[in-house]
Amino acid sequence: MAKNIKARKDDYAQWYLDVIKAAQLADYSPVRGCMVIRPEGYAIWEAVQRDLDRRFKDTGHVNAYFPLLIPQSFLTKEAQHVEGFAMECAIVTHTRLEKDPTNPGALRPASPLEEPLIIRPTSETMIGHMYAQWVQSYRDLPILINQWCNVMRWEMRTRLFLRTSEFLWQEGHTAHETAEEAQEETLKMLDVYADFAEAVLAIPVIKGVKTDSEKFPGADTTYCIEALMQDGKALQAGTSHNLGQNFSRAFEIKYLGRDNTQQYAWTTSWGVSTRLIGAMIMAHSDDDGLVLPPRVAPVVCAIIPVYKGDGERETVMAFIDTIVEKLVGAGEVASAAGRNKNAEIKQYFFDKLTHQRVIVDARDTRPGDKQYHWEQRGVPFRIEVGPRDVAAGAGLLKRRLDRAKETVALDTFSPEWLKAKLEEVHQVMFDKALAFQKQNTREATSYDQLKEIVEKQGGFVRCWFEPNRDAEATIKSETKATVRCILTDQPPGEGTCVYSGRPTKTRVLFAQSY
Amino acid sequence: MAKNIKARKDDYAQWYLDVIKAAQLADYSPVRGCMVIRPEGYAIWEAVQRDLDRRFKDTGHVNAYFPLLIPQSFLTKEAQHVEGFAMECAIVTHTRLEKDPTNPGALRPASPLEEPLIIRPTSETMIGHMYAQWVQSYRDLPILINQWCNVMRWEMRTRLFLRTSEFLWQEGHTAHETAEEAQEETLKMLDVYADFAEAVLAIPVIKGVKTDSEKFPGADTTYCIEALMQDGKALQAGTSHNLGQNFSRAFEIKYLGRDNTQQYAWTTSWGVSTRLIGAMIMAHSDDDGLVLPPRVAPVVCAIIPVYKGDGERETVMAFIDTIVEKLVGAGEVASAAGRNKNAEIKQYFFDKLTHQRVIVDARDTRPGDKQYHWEQRGVPFRIEVGPRDVAAGAGLLKRRLDRAKETVALDTFSPEWLKAKLEEVHQVMFDKALAFQKQNTREATSYDQLKEIVEKQGGFVRCWFEPNRDAEATIKSETKATVRCILTDQPPGEGTCVYSGRPTKTRVLFAQSY
Repeated sequence: MAKNIKARKDDYAQWYLDVIKAAQLADYSPVRGCMVIRPEGYAIWEAVQRDLDRRFKDTGHVNAYFPLLIPQSFLTKEAQHVEGFAMECAIVTHTRLEKDPTNPGALRPASPLEEPLIIRPTSETMIGHMYAQWVQSYRDLPILINQWCNVMRWEMRTRLFLRTSEFLWQEGHTAHETAEEAQEETLKMLDVYADFAEAVLAIPVIKGVKTDSEKFPGADTTYCIEALMQDGKALQAGTSHNLGQNFSRAFEIKYLGRDNTQQYAWTTSWGVSTRLIGAMIMAHSDDDGLVLPPRVAPVVCAIIPVYKGDGERETVMAFIDTIVEKLVGAGEVASAAGRNKNAEIKQYFFDKLTHQRVIVDARDTRPGDKQYHWEQRGVPFRIEVGPRDVAAGAGLLKRRLDRAKETVALDTFSPEWLKAKLEEVHQVMFDKALAFQKQNTREATSYDQLKEIVEKQGGFVRCWFEPNRDAEATIKSETKATVRCILTDQPPGEGTCVYSGRPTKTRVLFAQSY
Repeated sequence: MAKNIKARKDDYAQWYLDVIKAAQLADYSPVRGCMVIRPEGYAIWEAVQRDLDRRFKDTGHVNAYFPLLIPQSFLTKEAQHVEGFAMECAIVTHTRLEKDPTNPGALRPASPLEEPLIIRPTSETMIGHMYAQWVQSYRDLPILINQWCNVMRWEMRTRLFLRTSEFLWQEGHTAHETAEEAQEETLKMLDVYADFAEAVLAIPVIKGVKTDSEKFPGADTTYCIEALMQDGKALQAGTSHNLGQNFSRAFEIKYLGRDNTQQYAWTTSWGVSTRLIGAMIMAHSDDDGLVLPPRVAPVVCAIIPVYKGDGERETVMAFIDTIVEKLVGAGEVASAAGRNKNAEIKQYFFDKLTHQRVIVDARDTRPGDKQYHWEQRGVPFRIEVGPRDVAAGAGLLKRRLDRAKETVALDTFSPEWLKAKLEEVHQVMFDKALAFQKQNTREATSYDQLKEIVEKQGGFVRCWFEPNRDAEATIKSETKATVRCILTDQPPGEGTCVYSGRPTKTRVLFAQSY
């Protein structure tokens, strides 16, 4: 077991931070609650962006950029919206620094702004204001725009990736002619998120609807995908909101309809964030560190030479050259690693579209240290090559996921072989996570049972429940569990609400959550 | 001539704004000096990012993300740095909004921060602080990191893309073991920028060094690329700074050297921004609107059907299908356009790596309006197809750059043909811009001559000049011209300073600038 990583069973919260630290994914910054995403972590975000961006474009969306700062008055135009975000605002009140006459050598804010500006917690208000100018007629609809950017929500308790004051995300904002089209868009993007989580991050998710007390401030309906972490807590991994006409009324997004009358547009918004990286870590990693789903792994295979002396080194490295050529094709040399000026870690493109690489770790350090290095970084496969392997014409393949070992003959190596191996890992990871989710989804028919499951076993609790602000608040204070979602994929029917005892048609998932 | 676009000779500043508006590249936002980059403009930025990001990675850099907010005290650690940016800071002083008891219904900032936070104008300070923690030994060097992000410099006079309070950019930050390596990096990235400007944006640039009064606050030396716009003003298109040990001393970026002593690292930083889009517009566009350099054109060719009635429509559209298949290959259907739910503008990938597309404008509007639409958006080629063209088995090719027309037989169309045509356009655009730059670079041997050229002809003025803060300030106040750069590509020699009359070894370029 890795000495620098706590075991999950001993201290899950510390384990999570240790995994991030060991893999050098992120650091806390000197600004409270704000993180630095280090290159190893950012490369995962780039893989997420690349895949999602393609999905957004394939569904007809285009990217744009809207200002970081939002006039305070904008935020107040939608009543629920401002109530939801007022406590989390970071506020720009001044420009310019000037010398502080009361404190020689120090500076102080100089020019107060006429109106304070809020660092965007989300951009419905600014984008609503712009759409109102861009939309005149039904011919201007739909508008299907996405934005990749940073947002700020001043948080009291933060946790790397999962909850930070500043985070990176994408926010889609669309405007439509009809309510039906807006609803179709809302569900389409929820499906994009669900498919992405499962097909790329190997995280099984449950789709559902938020109760009124958990929905986005200003939305008619919030749809979400919920994932289960290894400690039995749920994590909201993405949301898609049908905003109805709430923002179009607040910001006057009006169009001349086909019937020649002025109409309010129907809008949606949807987003996922760097939180997905936290979900990915918590869903898959183990006590030895990070385990990367192959489709977002910046390095898919690390080849590690094992030798003594220059003679062995030459033989081993020549054999490794042959393996590399078989894995990625001749001449596919990628750039030198960012932090290794002597190119001691040689990098080769495995896939130019996704920038995924195969590396050869030719650093002058102990083979054990190298194994450890790539293991803690979650690289799906390692290939170890020593003089005996060269003599046998093979390499020793080690699978990060479960430490499975396999001797692979030189002729077996090919891009197709590695691709198939990676797909296999993806499938095993997904199946494992799905089995865990199923094992940890339990039924409750009474509030006592709900409480007992939440307290003793954790995981998702499925039950009949009539959503109700007061009931949800009481349950939360008594169990720390909340309604993660109202289940949409359920056969019709009716049951008895675990809390009120009254008949209800609503089935929900309860869980403690991040 | 386009009625919605002023002629350059009548009002160059208005022409620039008109071109941006007609092509829907950007809008001003309700926050003073901040812009909205609309989808058509953002697609150009995405092309810029894609190409530059590959160049950064090919030269061994990796991406990361650092916080938006910088403690005020950080900014003051490097004396020149804070002096350079103090006047442009946007300052966060509070979090949370609360009800304003003095103004019912209104909100006001609630919780003052202990220390004000500055929205990053650039990130040397924050990154210096983090590097100090990451670097222990010479083995940890070099660090070669780039960041794509937004930055804020509160500007009094703004101009879309060229000078806005918030803008998007990339900032590279590297730390090295030796002064030589830092210098090599500084020059390498200057070359990357120069090559990118010329090979991708078709903008010829001149490389040089900033004088002390124009250099980056905190740098030892600032290198720059300078481009000439069509109105004879210069535009700084990118900068690369050798920061020496200034920031490593201010932030304690120290390492244990090979000689077992503690050393300060040598750092660099380098950046280009959305300003490049402004440079591209001003370098190439004409009185009919935007002219896009082919390598960043999101749409490389627009095919426009011309027909009357359904019978003609069917014939023409079938023929266009054949052209498309020859241009992009069968089955290469891209997504529906973002804002056209009925897919009346059909999009096809021409290059999946660069996302460049060929489109067919099948909207039910007049062919003239469509021509106008794609012309103002700067699309390099249009192909017009009417019943006569179908009969002749050809299409009418129109080149945006110079309105050259050419009948092209069906069999000629192929991806290679279009690619060659686009390369041709790139070369013509570059040659034209280079000829303009050469015609507008003049020699001055006296201050009077310098003044006369600046006033009457504009452009670059090359002369002997001994850099000097006071002299530069006087010249700027008298001519509005500044030293754009000290020329580095000059034969050695000595001449007479146009201002002081004293001998100097320094040759510079003067110009008025953006």
